[in-house]
Amino acid sequence: MSEKPPVDDERHAAKMAKKKAARDKIMATKTDEKGLIVVHTGKGKGKSTAAFGMIFRCIAHGMPCAVVQFIKGGMATGERSLIQDRFSDLCEFHAMGEGFTWETQDRARDIEMAQAAWEKARELIRDPKHRMVLLDEINIALRYDYLDIDEVVTFLVEEKPAMTHVVLTGRNAKDELLEIADLATEMELLKHPFRSGVKAQIGVEF
Amino acid sequence: MSEKPPVDDERHAAKMAKKKAARDKIMATKTDEKGLIVVHTGKGKGKSTAAFGMIFRCIAHGMPCAVVQFIKGGMATGERSLIQDRFSDLCEFHAMGEGFTWETQDRARDIEMAQAAWEKARELIRDPKHRMVLLDEINIALRYDYLDIDEVVTFLVEEKPAMTHVVLTGRNAKDELLEIADLATEMELLKHPFRSGVKAQIGVEF
Repeated sequence: MSEKPPVDDERHAAKMAKKKAARDKIMATKTDEKGLIVVHTGKGKGKSTAAFGMIFRCIAHGMPCAVVQFIKGGMATGERSLIQDRFSDLCEFHAMGEGFTWETQDRARDIEMAQAAWEKARELIRDPKHRMVLLDEINIALRYDYLDIDEVVTFLVEEKPAMTHVVLTGRNAKDELLEIADLATEMELLKHPFRSGVKAQIGVEF
Repeated sequence: MSEKPPVDDERHAAKMAKKKAARDKIMATKTDEKGLIVVHTGKGKGKSTAAFGMIFRCIAHGMPCAVVQFIKGGMATGERSLIQDRFSDLCEFHAMGEGFTWETQDRARDIEMAQAAWEKARELIRDPKHRMVLLDEINIALRYDYLDIDEVVTFLVEEKPAMTHVVLTGRNAKDELLEIADLATEMELLKHPFRSGVKAQIGVEF
């Protein structure tokens, strides 16, 4: 812990009152609303899971949204079935990839897929009815140069509707993308069960 | 990028084939199924969002699950309404806290709430029908010693049913908890829109 916890109630109350005052003061300065460019990267778990959590949050609020999967399309995920079965009215779901690239071993085909997914992504983002668009695992397509980072960055900066949130996930996010991101989180792996011989499990990994 | 991307198709195919072989070999050794102790910590975004994403994943697979909110109960979240309105048959939701501690400034009351939430958590975890139980923001209750870390760790190690996944979230996860975790992720903040005067927004923050 970075800080010692309080030892008695008075000190705690005083500390918390100070915290609240500071927080209220800060929050009062936060007045803008804008569509954010959100990036989830890093080698840890939770990049796509947190992004899909944001999509479910939008669905919960009745906000039209959309998902384009750049890489994981070949894997059936719980999120995909839940969205397609229950919430297709609010959330468009496009699984464009065909599994991880190391499953296909065909670069030309991967590039074709990534380009088609990006075409769909642009169409969805340009439609201002979408309050959030998730580009799942796009960082992998960018990392292998299946997509041109400058083209993606330029599109997001110049053509994304002001109020639309765009969430981009995947390891090895490019610096050019992080530079234009409003909110970027790195998921860092501290511990992983595979290391102790546990396999990927329903509900946890997919 | 930690590694240069491949420059031509042959090298790419060879590299990916090698990757796939290595991955298949590793995955073949992963045969165990067990209930995991999963921790999401760190100062970044996505700790609770990814945990709720896992809950929605369980719901998608028809796996009974449960959520206990230790701190955020006072905040209406999209996840909460979506689960309570649409999936109460599969997921029990208990919002036990009453907002962040710095909103209450009453340590005795916070401790009482945390203890009641922990009581409910134990009851839900002991019931083997729950495939996953999310203890949202429990790390904050542990950090301020509203709950005894040794009691929590001992319970998880000795009483958690073998196949039940328990997900614990919040900043400043205690070392004792990380030691028994099967899967631990630190969400690290790279960039945050509050810094540029943007307020918390529906769909993104809540």
